[in-house]
Amino acid sequence: MSHFAYRDGIWHCEDVPVPRIAEEAGTPFYVYSKNALLENYKAMDAAFGDMPHTICYALKANSNLSVNRVLSGAGCGAEVVSGGELFRALKAGYSPDKIVFDGNAKTVAEMRQALEAGICAINVDSENELRVLEQTAKQMGLRARIGLRVNPDVNPETHPKIATGLKTTKFGVDLTKAIACYEHASKSSHLQVVGIQTHIGSQILKVDPFAEAFGKLVDIALSLREKGIGIEFIDIGGGLGIQYNEEAPPTYEAYMAALRPHWERCPVRIITEPGRRMVGNVGNLVTRVLYVKESPVKRFVVVDGAMNDLWRPSMYDAYHGVVAVRETRERFTADVVGGICESGDYFARDRDMGVVQPGEFIAIQSGGAYSSSMSSEYNSRPLVPEVLVDGDQFSVVRRRPSYEEMLRLEM
Amino acid sequence: MSHFAYRDGIWHCEDVPVPRIAEEAGTPFYVYSKNALLENYKAMDAAFGDMPHTICYALKANSNLSVNRVLSGAGCGAEVVSGGELFRALKAGYSPDKIVFDGNAKTVAEMRQALEAGICAINVDSENELRVLEQTAKQMGLRARIGLRVNPDVNPETHPKIATGLKTTKFGVDLTKAIACYEHASKSSHLQVVGIQTHIGSQILKVDPFAEAFGKLVDIALSLREKGIGIEFIDIGGGLGIQYNEEAPPTYEAYMAALRPHWERCPVRIITEPGRRMVGNVGNLVTRVLYVKESPVKRFVVVDGAMNDLWRPSMYDAYHGVVAVRETRERFTADVVGGICESGDYFARDRDMGVVQPGEFIAIQSGGAYSSSMSSEYNSRPLVPEVLVDGDQFSVVRRRPSYEEMLRLEM
Repeated sequence: MSHFAYRDGIWHCEDVPVPRIAEEAGTPFYVYSKNALLENYKAMDAAFGDMPHTICYALKANSNLSVNRVLSGAGCGAEVVSGGELFRALKAGYSPDKIVFDGNAKTVAEMRQALEAGICAINVDSENELRVLEQTAKQMGLRARIGLRVNPDVNPETHPKIATGLKTTKFGVDLTKAIACYEHASKSSHLQVVGIQTHIGSQILKVDPFAEAFGKLVDIALSLREKGIGIEFIDIGGGLGIQYNEEAPPTYEAYMAALRPHWERCPVRIITEPGRRMVGNVGNLVTRVLYVKESPVKRFVVVDGAMNDLWRPSMYDAYHGVVAVRETRERFTADVVGGICESGDYFARDRDMGVVQPGEFIAIQSGGAYSSSMSSEYNSRPLVPEVLVDGDQFSVVRRRPSYEEMLRLEM
Repeated sequence: MSHFAYRDGIWHCEDVPVPRIAEEAGTPFYVYSKNALLENYKAMDAAFGDMPHTICYALKANSNLSVNRVLSGAGCGAEVVSGGELFRALKAGYSPDKIVFDGNAKTVAEMRQALEAGICAINVDSENELRVLEQTAKQMGLRARIGLRVNPDVNPETHPKIATGLKTTKFGVDLTKAIACYEHASKSSHLQVVGIQTHIGSQILKVDPFAEAFGKLVDIALSLREKGIGIEFIDIGGGLGIQYNEEAPPTYEAYMAALRPHWERCPVRIITEPGRRMVGNVGNLVTRVLYVKESPVKRFVVVDGAMNDLWRPSMYDAYHGVVAVRETRERFTADVVGGICESGDYFARDRDMGVVQPGEFIAIQSGGAYSSSMSSEYNSRPLVPEVLVDGDQFSVVRRRPSYEEMLRLEM
């Protein structure tokens, strides 16, 4: 059962009616269901069956500390891509030996930070980075645990901006060069080869591209074994899609079944890096209707949220479900738009939706991933509060700043 | 002469070599030229000639307090679209009687804030908003000075996301309804009609759409006069384009010449709301090269700035000039990319540019408008510093937050 649903005609998150949160937090705000998140994590964890594994949640999807404490408390690990994310991950209580550091632009300062924390692995993106990391570890008198991000040249059939495993993208080491990199690393006294990693893209709705990429990683692992280079894990990255509208994303079981035949050829630990799949559907953005505007050609529902709070519709032409918080059988068609002075500032276009009046609330669905974490103060709009619901309780886990506070870096 | 140029083989902002700023502020950072901004303001101001006018700078383009103090000190006014922007505008020293409040989603709290400040005008976006404002002014025992934003249905021939004066956009009152709104307002004891406003879009490279829209506003003003409703100003909005690459935007003189014949039919005060045109070319984003990565099919220059610092390339497919801070005759072709895990994270693609090495700097041009003001902490990356240069002096006018500070709203 979904943890967001109507009860007695009012949209709820778990046992809390959404308008009750609005009274305390004001609008707009993000609301997350703790139990939806926990159940989701446990379902993915269980689907691995007997395959040894670590789930490293991708912090970039939703980096809120309290949301991450729910996951770390359940035994989840973390995938980070910056010093700021590593700092957050440690504050959120993730065990360092379950943290992987990915990304194609690591600075020396970030490498030092990761080496000091003693994380599971730094997944190295290029030969040049490998050399810089080796030098950094040497200066620190340490041995860096490394994976290599390989570019498997697999087409994930998703939005071009989030396809990341094609030859033409900036990510990873070309398959033909990977073995040479590993040979170099295995001979270094400041590098310790522990894994192999890739990430082919985001919001992927088929299992075949994952199986194809995973198979290529296994092939490399087997070649390495022949050369006497053992690895501890194969990290398939993230990218498993979710349902925003009418998509039918693969189940965890289907995903694992696709990986298993390849894993059986090289049964080491599997690392996955789910972001969107873990948190995407455990959050809503709740916003208040300010005006319903009838132009000669269109109806606009003008709300107090805007594109700076949720960039995805404008940035990726993304679909998000729109729910009238007060349940109604009356329907109309409208554009749901914010108050920013760009035509790209919208949440939904020509949407058939429950009729709403000024003062009422709208819940924008699938607002758990790449939503708050991408938000900005564009148009000098304050970042919106984040609220975590647990049963019939809720807490504001990120508060709204005052206008005065928004100037703090400029004073 | 441009205030950004090579001197002795090093890229300067005014008299300051860019690497000197990097030493103090770290990278990435935004750097703005105070004197480029001042000269630009004065040139626009002078081009009005004998036409009475107020330039209301659009804060959303660049809302930095110190940048705005330069403009307010020169006599400029401000255009704001939110309570946060109005708060900033007042802190930046703009005279309230030179502030206009635009936007299509004003809350009652924002209306009260504007009425308390006694600004020049609230430009009302819809009939419903007019009623809410009237009620709010009544409760406060005040009379609200209002303009009406009309939708002139003019095609500005720009990017669809920033075309705002078409019938299908969310903005303004339809021409056919405008007169009725004014008649209502003129009879209210809580509304005072003072102007008429529009905004047809952004980065517009021809003067004809402005002339066409201005002509329609003048027609309305003349119709109002016949009904005994006088206005103080006609506000043509912003939108005048700048040169990012090979565009040839209109001069201020050409723009004014296009407005003048219409203005002569109704010689009231003209308000303009330049944003990009005022600040777009007075700033650079400076970033450090971390890696130069050769993939089998492409060369990538990986820098420490990323799309969260400057969304425009990814969001609007925008072109920004790329300059190697150390002048060199050697050229190569490369993608300039950041460290965010999306293929959309780039500053330039297949760009012919001066050869750079890791550790060197790149200046990304035209970074004064819709650049820092749209930036976010996506991937837990700190907001970057902003630096204002005046001659051979520079000051950090927004500092970089620590990782700890980035959690302040969540503790």
